[in-house]
Amino acid sequence: GSSNLMDTLDDLPPGIGQYEDFHTIDWLRDIARDRMRHRHIIKKKQEGIWEKIKSAHDAWSGWVCVLLVGVAAGLCAGIIDIGATWMSDLKEGICAEAFWLNREQCCWSVSNTDANDDYCQQWKTWSEIFGGSRSGAGSYVVTYFVYMLWAIVFAMLAALFVRVFAPYACGSGIPEIKTILSGFIIRGYLGKWTLLTKSVGMMLAVSAGLSLGKEGPFVHVASCCGNVFSYLFPKYGTNEAKKREILSAASAAGVSVAFGAPIGGVLFSLEEVSYYFPLKTLWRSFFCALAAAFVLRSINPFGNDHLVMFYVEYNEPWYIQELIPFVLIGVLGGLYGSFFIKANIAWCRYRKNSKLGNYPIIEVLVVTFVTALLSYPNQYTRLNTSELIKMLVGRCGPEDDTDLCDYKRNYSSHMLNQTSLKTMTSSTVIGDGVYKALWMLALALVFKGIITVFTFGIKIPCGLFIPSMAVGAIMGRMIGIGVEQIVVANHDNPFFENMCESKQFCRITPGLYAMVGAAAALGGVTRMTVSLVVIMFELTGGLQYIVPLMVASMTSKWVGDALGKEGIYDAHILLNGYPYLDSKEEFTHTTLASDVMRPRRNDPPLSVITQDSMTVEEVDHVLKSTSHNGFPVIVSRESQYLVGFVLRRDLNLALSNALKNQDGIVYNSIVYFTNHVTENPNGPAPLKLRKIIDMAPVTITDQTPMEMVVEMFRKLGLRQTLVTHKGRLLGILTKKDVLRHIAHLENQDPESILFN
Amino acid sequence: GSSNLMDTLDDLPPGIGQYEDFHTIDWLRDIARDRMRHRHIIKKKQEGIWEKIKSAHDAWSGWVCVLLVGVAAGLCAGIIDIGATWMSDLKEGICAEAFWLNREQCCWSVSNTDANDDYCQQWKTWSEIFGGSRSGAGSYVVTYFVYMLWAIVFAMLAALFVRVFAPYACGSGIPEIKTILSGFIIRGYLGKWTLLTKSVGMMLAVSAGLSLGKEGPFVHVASCCGNVFSYLFPKYGTNEAKKREILSAASAAGVSVAFGAPIGGVLFSLEEVSYYFPLKTLWRSFFCALAAAFVLRSINPFGNDHLVMFYVEYNEPWYIQELIPFVLIGVLGGLYGSFFIKANIAWCRYRKNSKLGNYPIIEVLVVTFVTALLSYPNQYTRLNTSELIKMLVGRCGPEDDTDLCDYKRNYSSHMLNQTSLKTMTSSTVIGDGVYKALWMLALALVFKGIITVFTFGIKIPCGLFIPSMAVGAIMGRMIGIGVEQIVVANHDNPFFENMCESKQFCRITPGLYAMVGAAAALGGVTRMTVSLVVIMFELTGGLQYIVPLMVASMTSKWVGDALGKEGIYDAHILLNGYPYLDSKEEFTHTTLASDVMRPRRNDPPLSVITQDSMTVEEVDHVLKSTSHNGFPVIVSRESQYLVGFVLRRDLNLALSNALKNQDGIVYNSIVYFTNHVTENPNGPAPLKLRKIIDMAPVTITDQTPMEMVVEMFRKLGLRQTLVTHKGRLLGILTKKDVLRHIAHLENQDPESILFN
Repeated sequence: GSSNLMDTLDDLPPGIGQYEDFHTIDWLRDIARDRMRHRHIIKKKQEGIWEKIKSAHDAWSGWVCVLLVGVAAGLCAGIIDIGATWMSDLKEGICAEAFWLNREQCCWSVSNTDANDDYCQQWKTWSEIFGGSRSGAGSYVVTYFVYMLWAIVFAMLAALFVRVFAPYACGSGIPEIKTILSGFIIRGYLGKWTLLTKSVGMMLAVSAGLSLGKEGPFVHVASCCGNVFSYLFPKYGTNEAKKREILSAASAAGVSVAFGAPIGGVLFSLEEVSYYFPLKTLWRSFFCALAAAFVLRSINPFGNDHLVMFYVEYNEPWYIQELIPFVLIGVLGGLYGSFFIKANIAWCRYRKNSKLGNYPIIEVLVVTFVTALLSYPNQYTRLNTSELIKMLVGRCGPEDDTDLCDYKRNYSSHMLNQTSLKTMTSSTVIGDGVYKALWMLALALVFKGIITVFTFGIKIPCGLFIPSMAVGAIMGRMIGIGVEQIVVANHDNPFFENMCESKQFCRITPGLYAMVGAAAALGGVTRMTVSLVVIMFELTGGLQYIVPLMVASMTSKWVGDALGKEGIYDAHILLNGYPYLDSKEEFTHTTLASDVMRPRRNDPPLSVITQDSMTVEEVDHVLKSTSHNGFPVIVSRESQYLVGFVLRRDLNLALSNALKNQDGIVYNSIVYFTNHVTENPNGPAPLKLRKIIDMAPVTITDQTPMEMVVEMFRKLGLRQTLVTHKGRLLGILTKKDVLRHIAHLENQDPESILFN
Repeated sequence: GSSNLMDTLDDLPPGIGQYEDFHTIDWLRDIARDRMRHRHIIKKKQEGIWEKIKSAHDAWSGWVCVLLVGVAAGLCAGIIDIGATWMSDLKEGICAEAFWLNREQCCWSVSNTDANDDYCQQWKTWSEIFGGSRSGAGSYVVTYFVYMLWAIVFAMLAALFVRVFAPYACGSGIPEIKTILSGFIIRGYLGKWTLLTKSVGMMLAVSAGLSLGKEGPFVHVASCCGNVFSYLFPKYGTNEAKKREILSAASAAGVSVAFGAPIGGVLFSLEEVSYYFPLKTLWRSFFCALAAAFVLRSINPFGNDHLVMFYVEYNEPWYIQELIPFVLIGVLGGLYGSFFIKANIAWCRYRKNSKLGNYPIIEVLVVTFVTALLSYPNQYTRLNTSELIKMLVGRCGPEDDTDLCDYKRNYSSHMLNQTSLKTMTSSTVIGDGVYKALWMLALALVFKGIITVFTFGIKIPCGLFIPSMAVGAIMGRMIGIGVEQIVVANHDNPFFENMCESKQFCRITPGLYAMVGAAAALGGVTRMTVSLVVIMFELTGGLQYIVPLMVASMTSKWVGDALGKEGIYDAHILLNGYPYLDSKEEFTHTTLASDVMRPRRNDPPLSVITQDSMTVEEVDHVLKSTSHNGFPVIVSRESQYLVGFVLRRDLNLALSNALKNQDGIVYNSIVYFTNHVTENPNGPAPLKLRKIIDMAPVTITDQTPMEMVVEMFRKLGLRQTLVTHKGRLLGILTKKDVLRHIAHLENQDPESILFN
């Protein structure tokens, strides 16, 4: 409820309308407070040109704020990308003439040779610097050792930064942001120290070569920007509900810069993280996401011209028969997702409940050591994970001489100009190189699939978009090559007839399978749907592959949901006991409000305040003897009809304020919550507190089914509701009670829920 | 409220839970009813294999239903597209050897020559058939006459069909679908007759060459499919709230087939038409939209390979300076949108209030006559509107020899192979052809801009997406050519320096301006935002032009909103007095529930029913003497504490049922709404009706601000709420009261709102 409190905001002591740490916010009240403020500005607008400017500033501040947030998110992402690339390259060598350049810039800036060229004079590997040569066993050992050394140094620095400066900077941040957006206060989670630490920590963690991505953390970084900038505009900075509009837009910007996918970012914010998402926010989020993508593109940290990250240059058709392997990939993606969630949660629970949790830095170092040790020898795991995905979703063109592209195509290199591109890229029999690549990929798949379970959750910034996609892409590429070879071998089978012109001209694109696999694995892990498909298609630019992507991600979600209904973020929310009232899960039980409300049967009666018969001392006693956040006000002890609701904070402030500053108020004064005050000439002065009570609390009857109560809590963003029976107050039902009730019904420990 | 009624649904007479025509639905009640049904199925699942199959069928029915709807929408769209193309071509000529082929198929199927070739043997123009030649003044007159004749015949048929078979088939249907989705019942609006009539009427209306599009009506057609198929699945067919989930998905499919834009369709459904949009619906809508797009693409009515409608083959960069003309285009688009809305609403109001409304067919014929008469002489208006837009957003390549592409480029045709494409498409000085084209386009702009005002609202199926886009595209192209010439003339000005290499090598793309103009005009008219940008980019495939599109559509919306806040659909909703509680508009007034509730100060007291003291006769009298949809149940006349709420329909059914079938129930029987019944051995048998009352009605206090009441009505989908003061019933507040109150505060006639 809102009501009269709002109309008299100026008269009240400051601090009203603020929340304490780990409290839940009252959306209705905050929104009402904002409308009140808005009306005030509109009214004052007539008073002169300065007030008109203030009003215009107020009207535009939302747009200005999201613009600033977008620009800041784009800048942060650009800086992080540049830093991470430089430090990643530092593991292998250094630019001799200008140490601040990364490998690509180093080779490219000095001479104008192609940066992809394997050999580059200016770039010195560590074995060269330490007096050795570029190749040979000795060189390999030196490089391996320096690689591991750097990895461990980077990881240790990241872990120390997080530990010392901002413990909240670890992990992906998305579960916490979901909780915050659902209306919970976690002070400092989106502060400037978290922003700085997470940004630096992310560069270090990525450079350490761990199996993690920077895409999830980008959402956290962007949300920090959103929070920081919202304080420039009191409209958003001082109103938690309004601030969440900016945070929703910021999280869209985060995904937008992570993948270069502004539309996908908006849908991600809508589908996955946001809770209260009015349509105005949709448009602003899009603007914010676009501004961020535009800024990042202007910085151009990757140095490529494409807006998209894993741009697929091919435009091959796909055939209806291929839907069978795509469904298979979807099933495997769903299975992997479920395995990952179960294993990761089990490991995180073990960490939480055992001594392991006391040694976060040692854990980081061990994981880094194992990762570096095992990933260096395999060229596919040694590669930057984004590069690996890019390679896997790509097509084997005539210029590719990698193992993965070792096809026995019937043309010699001097024929290149005469042979059509179609011939050069068509599917055909594979050579030994591909067999070798398949073995290495299989090893990489197992390694990445397992190490990510142990990596996601260590106390450094880490996201799981890219590792999940990599697992899926490896799996997809392998299946793609398999399907390709089956089709090539059976090219005269009527079932495959339309896919082949001859044995040399089958048109299967293993890269497409990798793309579909990436979507399937990511879908299995996160259970994203529309936003996943849109992000994938914005990532690759392949508008024509929307049906395969959809089929795989749908199958993956169904398989995943059948094995366990939560996505990884919801599972982590549950694990950490955040008070998140999921708006996707349906409440299907038949309990009534009377089963859930407090007081329970044998509890002491509800602490209430009467409207015109309690003294200051009695009220003070109620305040001191309980810890409730608010108290119902009733007519009298005898007729318990509900009058209103008063918050502890407001009552506390009003009482101490009156005792200090108001003449004649003593402990014996009667507290009146009514307009009508019976003045007693002999007794002490009455204390009139009608202004601070909410005359319109949300009430329900005791017979209300809990499914409707849950719906009301979700949709109206309530903090509590009062339960009545035939007008009489029976009890109170808070968000905490609802969450505990849900946890209880789902056989979880209700006491695990974090709440104040 | 829901409650006990639901748990005993089987015992009750049939018909409970249905609504009458022009009634508003109770979302909470319907959703509760569905959960009840769901629980029932889950419970019975254990009873055997057949029940398990039924349960699985129930779980899948949502997906199956949207799949069917998507396929049906795709098929309808394909048939309509094919029919409309054939009939459009019929205006100019006929295929001599196979009359059922359209011009393109006729020319293409017989010989394999290019269909774009202006001359084609098999295709006979009417002047040829009537003995004349292809060219010359006589031929022109004959063709002109036949063109007009066909147009009038088509339009008359369309108007007659609508008049005779389904009056609801006229217009775009989007305002009505918005109203229906917000929870209103309009019987027959989405029926099979409307579907058939609208489909046929659309082909005829488009073929008549009127300034209208088939994109809006596609949404109506798809929604009809949704409604028809929902009856195959009782879960959706018998539950109005659940049915709206299917309808939301269907409207996404409608936009998807209209523009080949599945993502844009989903966003359109989310942003523009839907009201209750749980996330489950988002994913299903996407599936539905994709299925529809896939089916339509398989039918391939346009015969082109691109998934997108106005595919832009160019990939030119745009420059930051160009944002200035883009903003200008946005402003003009916003101005046009406001002008269009104001003029169209004024004309529709005039039609409604004058005799004009009695002659719908004559109006259609007059509009058709004027349109055909004026559009034939101008090649740009004679062209199919989609073709015109396609031409305007295109680039002038070397092969284009139209007026619009008459650039003075410095290469002769025999040099074609040596000159790079870049030279051939660069901006340069225009020739006389472009001047002529500009004049014709200016005429077309004025004509289209004005005739659309009179066309949108006549009693045949008509949408305004395409006409609005055409107006914008003409405007944009003209400005684009202007900018191009300014830049070419000042190519050495430092401001334009980066855009030109020399006078011959300026890189301005007038087609891009046309695209931006189309978005701006459509944005101004409909006030769509994210969905507009996404649709435009899916339409054109130009991912890189998302910033220009965004800038123009944002400017257009701001300018439009400054001049009048409603979009065309909301304006039509208001004009027709549909009971639509807009979820985008904020309620900013400070009235309280007590100001709005009934009874008003001087009204007779509220009709109430007491819980255990009224006889059947008294209850019957209350029913007969009032027309309210429901009655609050209170403790007694003396202590008016609220017990529950009972619906007229349920009460009526229960009373007549009891009087007919239950022994001992006479007019003197006491009606008990309590569990505790005092049996009177001498009196007549008591009638126990506790089962039919809702024990958990939503209540508010009289001090609740209306802004919160509006929020509750919107978010919870309420039909009414009861107003109490300290537990005592004071009055009732229905959706109708809320809508009338809003209309009253906005100085509109509250009595205009259509409602039962």
